[in-house]
Amino acid sequence: MDNCIFCKIVKGEIPSTRIYEDDICIATLDINPAAMGHTLIIPKEHHNDITDNTDEALLGHLFKVASIVGERQKERLSADGFNVLQNNGTAAGQSVMHLHIHVIPRYDNDGVIGLWKPLEPSMEEIAAMGEKLS
Amino acid sequence: MDNCIFCKIVKGEIPSTRIYEDDICIATLDINPAAMGHTLIIPKEHHNDITDNTDEALLGHLFKVASIVGERQKERLSADGFNVLQNNGTAAGQSVMHLHIHVIPRYDNDGVIGLWKPLEPSMEEIAAMGEKLS
Repeated sequence: MDNCIFCKIVKGEIPSTRIYEDDICIATLDINPAAMGHTLIIPKEHHNDITDNTDEALLGHLFKVASIVGERQKERLSADGFNVLQNNGTAAGQSVMHLHIHVIPRYDNDGVIGLWKPLEPSMEEIAAMGEKLS
Repeated sequence: MDNCIFCKIVKGEIPSTRIYEDDICIATLDINPAAMGHTLIIPKEHHNDITDNTDEALLGHLFKVASIVGERQKERLSADGFNVLQNNGTAAGQSVMHLHIHVIPRYDNDGVIGLWKPLEPSMEEIAAMGEKLS
């Protein structure tokens, strides 16, 4: 897609630091990482987000690559764990409208992602929400 | 797996509010949600996390269901977007050691997930990390 920065990165028109590539996707380092080693999994085909004409085969491949990258972060960076995060829409923090997955290495008590303050809905509120979403 | 709270939820031994179910997974409301409608996608088969003996078919299915749930959150809750978040290890915020995916409805400027303060590594630091993870 013209003017899509991730399509340009995929094509090599914008430089990036690839740590993995296959026919379907690339994995490249985020240049403004949450933590060193923060990697983006980017499909070569343009999709705006996870709901945009994706199928199970594509998603399965992308998230399997995310898993492999997370294992590397643990093995090679001694990370204690990792987050797999995929944002949809600007309200959710998506800044480039080309489907991508963040893989973020995590260390005990690093405070990298602010945990939410959990709500405490009543059983009735939960049940009402269940009906709405079923 | 004995004593796994999510295995018990899958079997119905612990009650939950299911909004979706098929042969492979359930989708159930988080009882301490980040935002109302926050849903967990839980595979029926026990896997500790995304790296634990998962294949592309399983991951593709789980994340496709996550996508469908996110679309429902937009349509039925008027969410502006949604996060798909999958945590691996206690350092990453995983509290139940049974693979699961959070789908969190988001609204403009809701502040639900604290965005990280991005690091600003040099080109040399990025290149060195690229070699380490390639």
